[in-house]
Amino acid sequence: MKRRAFLTATAVSGLAVGTVSAPALAQGTPQVRWRMATSWPKSLDTIHGSAEAMCQRIAQLTDGKFEIRPFASGELVPAGQVLDAVQNNTVECGHTLASFYIGKNTAYGIDGGLPFGLNARQHAAWLHYGGGMDALREFYGRNGLVNFLVGNVGVQMGGWYRKEIKSVEDLNGLKFRVGGFGGLVMTKLGVVPQQIAASDIYTGLEKGTIDAAEWIGPYDDEKLGFAKVAKYYYTPGWWEGSAAITGLVSTTAWNNLPDPFKVAFETAANEQALLMQAKYDAKNPEALRRLVGMGVQLRAFPRPVMDACYKASMEVLKENVDSNPDFARIYDSWKAFNDSSNSWFALAEHQLDSYRYTAQRKG
Amino acid sequence: MKRRAFLTATAVSGLAVGTVSAPALAQGTPQVRWRMATSWPKSLDTIHGSAEAMCQRIAQLTDGKFEIRPFASGELVPAGQVLDAVQNNTVECGHTLASFYIGKNTAYGIDGGLPFGLNARQHAAWLHYGGGMDALREFYGRNGLVNFLVGNVGVQMGGWYRKEIKSVEDLNGLKFRVGGFGGLVMTKLGVVPQQIAASDIYTGLEKGTIDAAEWIGPYDDEKLGFAKVAKYYYTPGWWEGSAAITGLVSTTAWNNLPDPFKVAFETAANEQALLMQAKYDAKNPEALRRLVGMGVQLRAFPRPVMDACYKASMEVLKENVDSNPDFARIYDSWKAFNDSSNSWFALAEHQLDSYRYTAQRKG
Repeated sequence: MKRRAFLTATAVSGLAVGTVSAPALAQGTPQVRWRMATSWPKSLDTIHGSAEAMCQRIAQLTDGKFEIRPFASGELVPAGQVLDAVQNNTVECGHTLASFYIGKNTAYGIDGGLPFGLNARQHAAWLHYGGGMDALREFYGRNGLVNFLVGNVGVQMGGWYRKEIKSVEDLNGLKFRVGGFGGLVMTKLGVVPQQIAASDIYTGLEKGTIDAAEWIGPYDDEKLGFAKVAKYYYTPGWWEGSAAITGLVSTTAWNNLPDPFKVAFETAANEQALLMQAKYDAKNPEALRRLVGMGVQLRAFPRPVMDACYKASMEVLKENVDSNPDFARIYDSWKAFNDSSNSWFALAEHQLDSYRYTAQRKG
Repeated sequence: MKRRAFLTATAVSGLAVGTVSAPALAQGTPQVRWRMATSWPKSLDTIHGSAEAMCQRIAQLTDGKFEIRPFASGELVPAGQVLDAVQNNTVECGHTLASFYIGKNTAYGIDGGLPFGLNARQHAAWLHYGGGMDALREFYGRNGLVNFLVGNVGVQMGGWYRKEIKSVEDLNGLKFRVGGFGGLVMTKLGVVPQQIAASDIYTGLEKGTIDAAEWIGPYDDEKLGFAKVAKYYYTPGWWEGSAAITGLVSTTAWNNLPDPFKVAFETAANEQALLMQAKYDAKNPEALRRLVGMGVQLRAFPRPVMDACYKASMEVLKENVDSNPDFARIYDSWKAFNDSSNSWFALAEHQLDSYRYTAQRKG
């Protein structure tokens, strides 16, 4: 059973580097209709909009013969049950954040993004040319799933706070709406992670039943109006070096899909991996300016807070390496790439970006 | 004439945001065969490899009905004449660096990347969601061309030097193989730009007929063996915030192309915009490690050198705004996006990257 699943995953993985021979679309192909469960409300025109664009592109590329209908969170299944729905073949495919599923297996978190981990470019490089896709496909394959990188949010903000965070001690007892690895890490520093729906964050901050909340970044956060109920907006959202968005297809559905439709699905996924990030990168600066204009107070986490969070993060990662063989296997590839990549990014990209941002600030 | 060309360019530009309705591929479409002239030797498996992958993907997506054959530089036309060949309909399309053509019009340089300008993510965001594609398509359209973002190299290295650059004075009289805006800028600082083919760089450095040369980055540079003849390898290559690679199609060829093939071309271009950069980001760190292992001495340009280059760059950009209406029109959109984007990138991405790289260096 396991061996068979592994072989399937490996065969599928070969697709990522373009080894599929020219397919015979046109005459022979049947009409295929899939449903895509997403973890996003329609109001997220960034992420949900990207899922819609991906489905639209697949239809365009297949003469309308491969139609995928995207559904917002809650329409078919709740945001956090997309993986299950695909795994159970309730729907053929999904569009989600892998980190939502670390309760099942912390290895999913490596796909969504780790604390102080790979930035968006590094994550795409690790997946497509650094062995990451092979490592993840083997894991997802054993879980009845085929995974695709379908987008990225980039570095998010560090959340909205009713009071300033001036020291590590200010984290103690903080009722913070935060999920994933970030929540696990901050528990070590006394934070009490709160799991509440996005729609309840505003009221929670207004009434003070929570002290702080992280959602996404300026463009998405602005719509929910947090600026009115929590004036300190912190940077950076260190709990993910980037928030990579994952497309999931059930292995059964994938294996039954004609080759030309596989090519269309994969190409559209890669296109959105570029375009979702580009849309965020264009929309966030405008939203940030509006928020600052409304009186939002930008703050950077103090260095001792960052240091404490970094130390706690490394502890959590080590605990998972020691306790979870799935995590350890993927992390091994991830960590080697991360360290090597950081040396190069620090040398060229970062040198120039640093100079540019400083020069502009000086005018 | 001008008005008609403008309307064409605008109509084409609409495609970029996915307004093309579902095409009718399959039965009705004819066989189309194009040639793609590239500016790259086949040994550049990064950039030329990406052009090949793009053509392969287009064939896959169209049941082999739309075949584009890529040619290396020199096979049909020299590296720096790809734009002309497409414009003259010698070939239907090309794959090149727009900055090669600033001798015709400096506005092309904004597409390829400006000194101290947008990084790769910012450039994609400006093009796809910040008005950049509309501005560029209007300009290219008036020149008989339709442009696509088909890849990016990212920040390059600052070149190979036989002697260290310790002060601004060390630039005076330096025979430096550098092109594009970088060459224009450095002329102001006494550099004597050398225009020699990539294949002649090694001998030039060995014999001392040139003092320094920039080519690309660790992975591509390593193959040419520069480490043996110039031991100082400088960072960063500030003459482009990123080196964006442009696909060009003649307006005539584009207008005659069936809609489904337009969709396939555009989607494959967007996919390669992700994958070319990902490949560079995966290959450069490994090559950098090998180069350092060979004894290459890494150096960062001293701050006074960077400051002098920045000042000279701003002067050159201003001169072009004042003297070239095409440049001014596109630069207006570019500059507004650049400044706004930098504020956001400095706040989130850069804060986290800075922390990560520093933390790793400390161990």
